[in-house]
Amino acid sequence: MSETIRISVDAMGGDKGPRVVVEGARLALKERKNTSFIFHGRQDQLDPLLAEFSDLKPVSTIHHCDTVILMDDKPSQALRKGRGTSSMWAALQSVKDGEADVAVSGGNTGALMAMATFCLRPIEGISRPAIAAIWPTLRSDIVVLDVGATIDDDARQLVDFSILGGALARALFDQDSPTVGLLNVGTEELKGLDHVKEAARVLAAAHDAGFTYYGFVEGDDIGKGTVDVVVTDGFTGNIALKTAEGTARQVGTYLRMALSADPMSRLGALLASRALNALRRKMDPRTVNGGVFLGLNGIVIKSHGGTDEIGVKSALGLAYEMARSRLMDKVAEGMRRFPRPLQATPVAALAPQPEAKPA
Amino acid sequence: MSETIRISVDAMGGDKGPRVVVEGARLALKERKNTSFIFHGRQDQLDPLLAEFSDLKPVSTIHHCDTVILMDDKPSQALRKGRGTSSMWAALQSVKDGEADVAVSGGNTGALMAMATFCLRPIEGISRPAIAAIWPTLRSDIVVLDVGATIDDDARQLVDFSILGGALARALFDQDSPTVGLLNVGTEELKGLDHVKEAARVLAAAHDAGFTYYGFVEGDDIGKGTVDVVVTDGFTGNIALKTAEGTARQVGTYLRMALSADPMSRLGALLASRALNALRRKMDPRTVNGGVFLGLNGIVIKSHGGTDEIGVKSALGLAYEMARSRLMDKVAEGMRRFPRPLQATPVAALAPQPEAKPA
Repeated sequence: MSETIRISVDAMGGDKGPRVVVEGARLALKERKNTSFIFHGRQDQLDPLLAEFSDLKPVSTIHHCDTVILMDDKPSQALRKGRGTSSMWAALQSVKDGEADVAVSGGNTGALMAMATFCLRPIEGISRPAIAAIWPTLRSDIVVLDVGATIDDDARQLVDFSILGGALARALFDQDSPTVGLLNVGTEELKGLDHVKEAARVLAAAHDAGFTYYGFVEGDDIGKGTVDVVVTDGFTGNIALKTAEGTARQVGTYLRMALSADPMSRLGALLASRALNALRRKMDPRTVNGGVFLGLNGIVIKSHGGTDEIGVKSALGLAYEMARSRLMDKVAEGMRRFPRPLQATPVAALAPQPEAKPA
Repeated sequence: MSETIRISVDAMGGDKGPRVVVEGARLALKERKNTSFIFHGRQDQLDPLLAEFSDLKPVSTIHHCDTVILMDDKPSQALRKGRGTSSMWAALQSVKDGEADVAVSGGNTGALMAMATFCLRPIEGISRPAIAAIWPTLRSDIVVLDVGATIDDDARQLVDFSILGGALARALFDQDSPTVGLLNVGTEELKGLDHVKEAARVLAAAHDAGFTYYGFVEGDDIGKGTVDVVVTDGFTGNIALKTAEGTARQVGTYLRMALSADPMSRLGALLASRALNALRRKMDPRTVNGGVFLGLNGIVIKSHGGTDEIGVKSALGLAYEMARSRLMDKVAEGMRRFPRPLQATPVAALAPQPEAKPA
């Protein structure tokens, strides 16, 4: 008897066109029955697709849009040509208008972030939105942000990201006070950038902020799952994410090569195929597809542009969970628990007890 | 009939004391006969160790030092207490005095970098030294730098690192013009930090510089081996390195868990054990142990503090290869081929054709 989650979908976003998007939605509906969809895009392409899927059609609406944002449109270009008219914009507008609980697009990240910021606007007190990744670790899934929205080095943003990441972790993991770590290069004195150290001072002084500040963490703490939320700037976070993806693919390739090296290994791989297939599914990047835009007045999920219907299903599943767990309420709660003055205030003044030393 | 490579070893550096260092040297000597060692450290500890190893003793000298730099000594503290007297300093001094071709220490990175910079001094025209990692990829080993020496964001340093990394790649891979890529967050307009873009402009305008500038690369290009040298600042490089290490360990753990999940998988793993053991050796972090300090008047190899004799052997092997391939000559050649004005010159003025656009 749970309420229906309404997902607004940019049906034209992604490299592979609307078919994989609609097929992904059908798969997502199978897993979560109480979902409805608004597909934004070309009616002439979407009508026949929905006609194919009799299970999906009754819970779907098509909203026709003429304009499609291309994968290589620059953010400024995308805004000029697609504001108000494109499927990407319309997907966001549905959230703004309250017709949908969450928006999903596989369109290009820069354009989507520009449009989302313009359409939904940043939450009061947050200077810039961030993109959070749900990162599988040896302990459990954790949140890593920012993985690509901002590239400024700014202590205030790292504090903002801690509040937002803490809210996302509370929504996802049902924890009252998830641990937050700042990504840094070791624990020796003199190490780390000034803005990271400044953010650490502010976070260490916070109490009952909706998260527990853990301290600095290093790159290998991500895979270990040392903390629930890893906070870093968008440049470093993006490089960490892609380096990890590249390493996982590299090790996977090594494993395939090793297990096909000689007949005995091939036989061994055959016998262990159930375990190896489970491992392959676990490491399949499509199963963790979806970046969460945080810090805007609405939930937006970025799906990978190159993914297939399985990846789209994962992104829609993530969107569903974000809406169901009331992410926006958790963010609002986070903002209340860590009160934010006006943007111009120096970051040191944000600390409840600015004189306190980092833990 | 090749000449002997003389390795100066900080026998007290590392978490596990001099025994693993001396045992590592014995293993290294087995692989490369024409090596001699100067062990710097406590005579009373080193004498009995060398007495155990009759093969190592004839090619070894002990240089007694009273002071030992601890793993948690801060760089400034280490300099104060250990300058001139510690085993770490003495290991570097041997290179400076021409008694050894290369120095190796497993002591703490910050202290070793501070002492090395103080003792050996940066090469004229290079503002700061860097630490380079030799990174196994799907194509071949590549060079990634800086992985932790500097944490400034500075275009000039990225250009310096390209020259140094190019020289290291020429020494290691026997290539005349290795490819160099700048680590960045994608190829879309507006992406990337200003100093990275500025460095790209300078590098794109260089010709016959001892390397070929490839352009921007992303995190997943490291594991693919897209370029021979990946250049980034020490903060990002350190986080990328440790994130990759963490991911490799994570995937390895998943694999072990999968292959012991049920009897059939365990049998399969047994049959494939030769291939799996080869994979384990390939992924063993001890086999790629050793960071190369670049940009100083002498070669210094940083061994991992927590490694065992196998890891020490790898670091000594790397030191041997760096000396044998005449790394310092390649660096000097790199400096000549990419002429460096005085440090105060703005980076844009370094470009042979400052008006040229990036490729």
